[in-house]
Amino acid sequence: MTREECAALDASDPLCDRRALFELPPGIIYLDGNSLGALPRATRERLATTVAREWGEDLIRSWNTARWMDLPARAGAKIAPLIGAGPHEVIAADSTSVNLFKLVAGALALRPGRRVIVSEPGNFPTDLYILEGVKGFLGDVEVRLAEPDRLHEALDESVALLLLTQVHYKSGRIHDMAALTARAHAVGALALWDLSHSAGALAVELNACDADLAVGCGYKYLNGGPGAPAFLFVAERLQWEFRSPLTGWMGHARPFEFVDEYAPAPGVLQTLCGTPAVLGLSALDAALDAFEGVSMADVREKSRRLGDLFLSEIERRLPGQFDIACPRDSHLRGSQVSLRHAQGYPIMQALIEQGVIGDFRAPDILRFGFAPLYVSHVDVWDAAERLQRVIQEELWRDPRHHIVAGVT
Amino acid sequence: MTREECAALDASDPLCDRRALFELPPGIIYLDGNSLGALPRATRERLATTVAREWGEDLIRSWNTARWMDLPARAGAKIAPLIGAGPHEVIAADSTSVNLFKLVAGALALRPGRRVIVSEPGNFPTDLYILEGVKGFLGDVEVRLAEPDRLHEALDESVALLLLTQVHYKSGRIHDMAALTARAHAVGALALWDLSHSAGALAVELNACDADLAVGCGYKYLNGGPGAPAFLFVAERLQWEFRSPLTGWMGHARPFEFVDEYAPAPGVLQTLCGTPAVLGLSALDAALDAFEGVSMADVREKSRRLGDLFLSEIERRLPGQFDIACPRDSHLRGSQVSLRHAQGYPIMQALIEQGVIGDFRAPDILRFGFAPLYVSHVDVWDAAERLQRVIQEELWRDPRHHIVAGVT
Repeated sequence: MTREECAALDASDPLCDRRALFELPPGIIYLDGNSLGALPRATRERLATTVAREWGEDLIRSWNTARWMDLPARAGAKIAPLIGAGPHEVIAADSTSVNLFKLVAGALALRPGRRVIVSEPGNFPTDLYILEGVKGFLGDVEVRLAEPDRLHEALDESVALLLLTQVHYKSGRIHDMAALTARAHAVGALALWDLSHSAGALAVELNACDADLAVGCGYKYLNGGPGAPAFLFVAERLQWEFRSPLTGWMGHARPFEFVDEYAPAPGVLQTLCGTPAVLGLSALDAALDAFEGVSMADVREKSRRLGDLFLSEIERRLPGQFDIACPRDSHLRGSQVSLRHAQGYPIMQALIEQGVIGDFRAPDILRFGFAPLYVSHVDVWDAAERLQRVIQEELWRDPRHHIVAGVT
Repeated sequence: MTREECAALDASDPLCDRRALFELPPGIIYLDGNSLGALPRATRERLATTVAREWGEDLIRSWNTARWMDLPARAGAKIAPLIGAGPHEVIAADSTSVNLFKLVAGALALRPGRRVIVSEPGNFPTDLYILEGVKGFLGDVEVRLAEPDRLHEALDESVALLLLTQVHYKSGRIHDMAALTARAHAVGALALWDLSHSAGALAVELNACDADLAVGCGYKYLNGGPGAPAFLFVAERLQWEFRSPLTGWMGHARPFEFVDEYAPAPGVLQTLCGTPAVLGLSALDAALDAFEGVSMADVREKSRRLGDLFLSEIERRLPGQFDIACPRDSHLRGSQVSLRHAQGYPIMQALIEQGVIGDFRAPDILRFGFAPLYVSHVDVWDAAERLQRVIQEELWRDPRHHIVAGVT
């Protein structure tokens, strides 16, 4: 493909008007929206208003006048159509990790007598760590980790819950949500899906897949800002029996009656815990408007194309230089490409110096995320060209790029 | 006291330079900083920078370059001197409710064989609700509620944990932290203090009182903004054995090694759970600078004086009109005054229309908070005068003020 052909694809892209909604630094090709989404212009304005007018001028009154109290449900209702859920099934609150704890512990209580939770080794660490935390406190829980091709066998009648991340953070591999959920249900287990690397990039279909529970991240493809509130989903059919262990006052049916006895709010609202994080929620709520009127099928189509374009350009320009560490079939791959290289760390540092921001995941994975709302085909073509330069001119040999510093 | 005498007190107030650090709406006397602290000017600037430059321009790199990753510990270290703790004993993260769950569950694990938690009826609801959630999650826990004068008896050898709020949210009554902690220790129990209504207004002395654990709110006297991250404290001597059930990746010893097995970070850092909420933490971190160089003894002294001034003005101007619902002795009272009146709701609405913002707690409490950093003696005098007008001119009879709307 030529750069001109990429430009033509961008011109006919049904999402081409979205890029202008984001503030992207000039000269930078940003392929790390799967780690931290870019800043939506609307968010910057919204936060300035939230701080100066709602907080500064209207002060405590804004809980009512600016509807701060509704923010978890309002943002949740905007996320719902992106993940195939009803607006009354999703809230935005807390972190992905905290929400995992709520749903894992709540799921166990829904399957009394069953104490096995199935997941996979190499799942995103916080998913596995939270399972350890639940096990440490309940004692009689078994965490059973099975490789993807052994998950069907691992699911038996002792299993209370299957917890999987739909798109793997490192490889980008997509699990078959419908088939695995059906298998979990066949043995009487519940299915909890971590959508951190899929929400906002894939056409997730929670209800069509009959998923029970889900969590996901607000700061990746949803562009909610660094450490944004996460979201959680409880299927309508479970909402009457589901109980979160984190029974904070915001999940109370009548929090402002200040009674001593806890009574859960109806539906998914009972999974709220503490006071809504208004700054983070306002940022997320504004960011979600970038998805208004967008077809998730278009988003997914573009996501697959960008990944395929990057992979074919790398294969053409740098044959044999990298192991492909993600599925080659775009239908099995999330909105990212992962390349393996023994010099992955300095290569990524050199590439960042060339203005292409991806990230590195130890020990040897270069990760490139393609946020369909603001990454263009030309971006991807240019990124491949710059990576070619880094390799062919051996820019990564510069000793500066071998200094391991920082955490992300 | 005359208004001129109040102005003279303000002129000699050692905290008088602090008021200029806040953006206070003109014409408003804000006596609700115990519910939502006012906006510090520095916070507005800091958030604009965090959003536009750190997020918008530097994107993912800001986790390192802007030290986003350290924010929970940095903000925690600024809170520590306000509550008599060491900088390595406090982090800012999550909500008060979530932090309560971490510490209550963690405390139970430190006292195996003991399953009783003591608190008081009418404690702030989320404290009691979280105890119910822990009980529901773990099963064999007894929550024993005892009136303040029966707490000593309630503490026996079966008790694992005493959970109290130092300053009562409604009455403003202060518990004797040193004596109750000593009593808890005498029977082998731990003491967990909720500092939501004391941090930033009282000279809290956690370590001098030998307290074990504490939580508190970031958005009241600490001025961290609506729904700001909360804080938690784990005494150094407990940090090696304490374990949080919320074992998220940010509490891991090496989160960016992405290993499957959880290993707690050293010290209080293991109580971190999900990704730091950067917007909220940046706001809180900037707000805390308003306490730099401030003596908490001065803060407390002014807090007591403002409360005494308000009470004596109310008694002088409106004798017999209100029941005093808080301790009359300022040494036993937090930084708030609570008045009881059968028409409390419309009186507060009418007072707000007169430019004095306090709040109402059902069924009949008018609550006035005095944030020592930005409330002046003249403010308090003027507020009493306006309340006098509301009562004597019966402004509260206006039917508009009887419409019960909103939640706070």
